[in-house]
Amino acid sequence: MENRGILTVVSGFAGSGKGTLMKELIRNYDCYALSVSATSRAPRPGEEEGVSYFYKTREEFERMIEKGELLEYAEYVGNYYGTPRSFVDEKLSEGKDVILEIEIQGAMQIKKQYPEALLLFITPPSAAELKERLLRRGTETEDVIRKRMQRAAEEAEGIDQYDYIVVNDDVAECTELLHGIIRAAHFTPRHQAEFVEKIREELQGNR
Amino acid sequence: MENRGILTVVSGFAGSGKGTLMKELIRNYDCYALSVSATSRAPRPGEEEGVSYFYKTREEFERMIEKGELLEYAEYVGNYYGTPRSFVDEKLSEGKDVILEIEIQGAMQIKKQYPEALLLFITPPSAAELKERLLRRGTETEDVIRKRMQRAAEEAEGIDQYDYIVVNDDVAECTELLHGIIRAAHFTPRHQAEFVEKIREELQGNR
Repeated sequence: MENRGILTVVSGFAGSGKGTLMKELIRNYDCYALSVSATSRAPRPGEEEGVSYFYKTREEFERMIEKGELLEYAEYVGNYYGTPRSFVDEKLSEGKDVILEIEIQGAMQIKKQYPEALLLFITPPSAAELKERLLRRGTETEDVIRKRMQRAAEEAEGIDQYDYIVVNDDVAECTELLHGIIRAAHFTPRHQAEFVEKIREELQGNR
Repeated sequence: MENRGILTVVSGFAGSGKGTLMKELIRNYDCYALSVSATSRAPRPGEEEGVSYFYKTREEFERMIEKGELLEYAEYVGNYYGTPRSFVDEKLSEGKDVILEIEIQGAMQIKKQYPEALLLFITPPSAAELKERLLRRGTETEDVIRKRMQRAAEEAEGIDQYDYIVVNDDVAECTELLHGIIRAAHFTPRHQAEFVEKIREELQGNR
């Protein structure tokens, strides 16, 4: 396990800035790989197969579900979205820390299959700041903002199921903190199992 | 709990360099306080009450045991050594991350009383390097070194009970890594409980 990457699930309120943080992690450190989702929806202009998504027909997607090829999936406005297990496993084997940006239900599905996954929840410093950020985007109607705030109130009920709850007040600081948390996870006994085995044998041999 | 410090227990093989690492942590960051042990042994020249140890008579020490005033204690070559609960609690309340340098038995006693304590184990990169470091000290006889290596082999059996196993290859790097691990612990749900409560209330009020 020692050189295997850490599977990191990142969730957060809409407006928490988690998208920006993920981009900063990828940009600043070369140990990360972003998971690419599979979807049954059609590609949009500018999107790229294997980068934006892996595009599947509904039938292909349903076959992936049946075969257990998805770590988690959900249906949203008539389309499937999910995380292909093979991509994640491949990157983890390469030693990459794989980042999955998904919602709480998906995060809990992942934790069942990968108990060693690291679950991070990103939040703004306050509800007022969250609303402020949504308003600042200027792209959403008052009604949409109200719905997002309601959704945040629901999501807040589940956040203590995460391993870490990180307040995003300053992007640079928060990026560094996230990196520190993920780095720390490499030093748990689970991830140090090979090293522990090695030094035990050496010490026994030395007796 | 939010502003409360993290109780950090540090153990490691003799020769792991944990003493140096603790000094570096204290020197580089002002968030740490080293726990001061109580002992029934007499002060040695140059030692200072409340800095080196809290000096107690055997009777005083035994009264502390009876009253549950020690987080852990052990008897060693006819003298008691232990960790006074009051000092640790006081520093934690002040928001200091309190570092306890103790052996595995003591570490396990602490974990029972403070399940949120962070247990770190420091190890050199290999058994050969461990032996090398003990030899380099030049102060110990071959027999003492053999005993220390045997003791390390025994200790190695318990190290996966620690939360993190950290290889001390380079002091500066390892100090920074330890700091990162302890810092991360501030963001677990247990330590973010106040924040979670606050944002839940705010989001509910916003509905």
